[in-house]
Amino acid sequence: MLLELKREAYEANLALPREGLINLTFGNASAIDRAKGVFAIKPSGVAYEDLTPEDMVLVDLEGEIVEGKLRPSSDTPTHRRLFIAFESIGGVVHTHSSHATAFAQAGRAIPIFGTTHADYFYGDIPVTRKMTADEIGGGAYEWETGNVIVEAFGDKDPADFPAVLVNRHAPFTWGPTVAKAVEVAVAVECIAHMALMSLQLAPQLPTIESELLNKHFKRKHGPGAYYGQTGNC
Amino acid sequence: MLLELKREAYEANLALPREGLINLTFGNASAIDRAKGVFAIKPSGVAYEDLTPEDMVLVDLEGEIVEGKLRPSSDTPTHRRLFIAFESIGGVVHTHSSHATAFAQAGRAIPIFGTTHADYFYGDIPVTRKMTADEIGGGAYEWETGNVIVEAFGDKDPADFPAVLVNRHAPFTWGPTVAKAVEVAVAVECIAHMALMSLQLAPQLPTIESELLNKHFKRKHGPGAYYGQTGNC
Amino acid sequence: MLLELKREAYEANLALPREGLINLTFGNASAIDRAKGVFAIKPSGVAYEDLTPEDMVLVDLEGEIVEGKLRPSSDTPTHRRLFIAFESIGGVVHTHSSHATAFAQAGRAIPIFGTTHADYFYGDIPVTRKMTADEIGGGAYEWETGNVIVEAFGDKDPADFPAVLVNRHAPFTWGPTVAKAVEVAVAVECIAHMALMSLQLAPQLPTIESELLNKHFKRKHGPGAYYGQTGNC
Amino acid sequence: MLLELKREAYEANLALPREGLINLTFGNASAIDRAKGVFAIKPSGVAYEDLTPEDMVLVDLEGEIVEGKLRPSSDTPTHRRLFIAFESIGGVVHTHSSHATAFAQAGRAIPIFGTTHADYFYGDIPVTRKMTADEIGGGAYEWETGNVIVEAFGDKDPADFPAVLVNRHAPFTWGPTVAKAVEVAVAVECIAHMALMSLQLAPQLPTIESELLNKHFKRKHGPGAYYGQTGNC
Repeated sequence: MLLELKREAYEANLALPREGLINLTFGNASAIDRAKGVFAIKPSGVAYEDLTPEDMVLVDLEGEIVEGKLRPSSDTPTHRRLFIAFESIGGVVHTHSSHATAFAQAGRAIPIFGTTHADYFYGDIPVTRKMTADEIGGGAYEWETGNVIVEAFGDKDPADFPAVLVNRHAPFTWGPTVAKAVEVAVAVECIAHMALMSLQLAPQLPTIESELLNKHFKRKHGPGAYYGQTGNC
Repeated sequence: MLLELKREAYEANLALPREGLINLTFGNASAIDRAKGVFAIKPSGVAYEDLTPEDMVLVDLEGEIVEGKLRPSSDTPTHRRLFIAFESIGGVVHTHSSHATAFAQAGRAIPIFGTTHADYFYGDIPVTRKMTADEIGGGAYEWETGNVIVEAFGDKDPADFPAVLVNRHAPFTWGPTVAKAVEVAVAVECIAHMALMSLQLAPQLPTIESELLNKHFKRKHGPGAYYGQTGNC
Repeated sequence: MLLELKREAYEANLALPREGLINLTFGNASAIDRAKGVFAIKPSGVAYEDLTPEDMVLVDLEGEIVEGKLRPSSDTPTHRRLFIAFESIGGVVHTHSSHATAFAQAGRAIPIFGTTHADYFYGDIPVTRKMTADEIGGGAYEWETGNVIVEAFGDKDPADFPAVLVNRHAPFTWGPTVAKAVEVAVAVECIAHMALMSLQLAPQLPTIESELLNKHFKRKHGPGAYYGQTGNC
Repeated sequence: MLLELKREAYEANLALPREGLINLTFGNASAIDRAKGVFAIKPSGVAYEDLTPEDMVLVDLEGEIVEGKLRPSSDTPTHRRLFIAFESIGGVVHTHSSHATAFAQAGRAIPIFGTTHADYFYGDIPVTRKMTADEIGGGAYEWETGNVIVEAFGDKDPADFPAVLVNRHAPFTWGPTVAKAVEVAVAVECIAHMALMSLQLAPQLPTIESELLNKHFKRKHGPGAYYGQTGNC
């Protein structure tokens, strides 16, 4: 069932090592069918070169496995938490891409220094608070990881900030489709690399001026967008 | 019409991701036919792997679309402004290549530290001033981007400085042909990477001595050039 | 004899340049047959593209060459020392991968800053003390290299810390199989790169909180593991 | 004539971009036939993908073109100067590889921090003094570049230090064959990258202890060598 959904998730998972976002098996992608309330996700710890579309595991929003012979990614509860909280999103990607993870490990948001960043995010890429010992050790670690992400967002619109850094851990990204979430994951890594270098050149660099942020974000997003062929990217 | 021009622009656009200068759809290249006053430019937001030569949009120097089914790059007015101001150039390239963009985000010119740089530029690679809120929000952002570039050049010869960093944004490069503008874009990224590392090794490093600058720039450019097979690169 | 063992060692050696862990001939991998007390190792100074499975040299735990027309890797005594001291391991890998080697040259352990690291190591990746002039010049340099590694481990479990940095030199990694030792070598290089960048962002960054370390290491290792398909990675 | 020599030089030139040592046309390799006193070198400013073995230009030690339809590399007088001064070498390579060039631009020798470096060099990789205005502008710039290299070596054995950084410029390497000079160019770039990172981790890092330097250099070079299959690398 849901062959097309499984194929989308499969293609997104394969894109991660191809785009240089993943070493080893550090990462996963999922795609949701909102009508059915079911998402397809990578199985746990399987090498990317051995994956097939049929290996994708189908899980519902209560966390029950709907179909699949393999165990789903250990990060499945985090994906599920995000699909529940962020109703507009259609796909989630998790990587340990190097430059973004360096910020996550340092517990720092990625400051918005230029228009590349502003083309994707309406401000800094947020970082969660550290998780408590109870959240980590209480038996629902991956679900609680989702909770600290949701908490960090407050009333921020996840469409304005389609990524987060989990403190000490690594980035999660999302989008209207899982393919778009992969694109954001590429952008986050690239933005992190450039921010790190700009900080080397100017350790006290202030973030981008608000007019330029508004201009770049809004030429790509929302009713006034004029970038691309459709008016929306 | 102008099939050869469209092919040149197409080839230059394809070279950008192949040379590692582009992630996603961040970048574009254009080539001008000076006799006709028409340039060919990448359509907006189309993935590089989907481009064909026929997709190139033809635009004249008044900004009118002469031919093309797709919307031209949102950066088209910047290219147009440069073609008008810099009469000797035949092609323009815009990338968000990582190291050069790190300097642009930090608002710093790329200091000329060695002969690699001097082989292409007759001094630091300039950075524009920041744009004002009016320039950004007044409805002609991309045209005004071209204006701050032109302002930054004053009476500098664009052949002596075939690139600029737009503050908070990224590099633009140019040349007698669009293929040469691509070559300069490769050089700018490489030069930026090396400058960043030289600054790490020697934060107060002075720029290159004027004799060496003159020697290297002039062995490649102008009447006394002796590099390459034609006496001009 | 031991064709399968030679093939495993051969495959692991080929993986090193493919994974970007090796320049030139800087590195080697070996696999042991514990029942026979014999390991297969790369011959010395042979280019990776010229290797065949038959070129692998068979050496026993006394250091005698059991089979092979070529001289074994000059690092053979270090591998042998590790196979003797660490009875649970089945393969050893040595690389000069760039980021890990930068830590080794600086004589610094790689501090554990995030969950990527904690997925593989139960703490910092240790660095040996410097070797003495006698150890270096006394005629058994490579064996003594193994000795300082063993000394650095004390009563640490090599399964909890499947890698070490030899001071001034480079990393060695190991695992239950040589294929797993290659995987750890990839992880060490990636972890070193991210640690270097996190230190740039936060020079005084404390290491990971113990709850998070325990959680991540133990979800992948030992009786409570739930990552991957087998419960053990 | 000298078809084999031209092929060696050709293969070495092609190896430079393949090994990531070259962007654009920044670099060249040459091989000498000592009996005939003639060397084969890359033509100037020709793209690597367009080169053929027949394009190599033959030049004698007096600087006369012996054979060739194309103009030789503008760096030919530097190669010639090195072939005259360093009688034991059979090939010369010049690159602008990024990390090594960053040291050259900063006017810093590459400090010897570890065994990777000691496997190739018997100490720091030297940097020349800056060239004077007369040396630069007096009409024999490339020959004078060779002279400052020779001056920097004094009575150092070029076999013990098979590379140099020309101040403000970039590295030159050499070896008994041009293929070996390419190998050294790869090593220099890798060593420079690691040294830069070790300096980031430990800005005051002292260089390697003399016992370890002697051990590593001499296990690969000279009468006591035991690395590789021949006893000499």
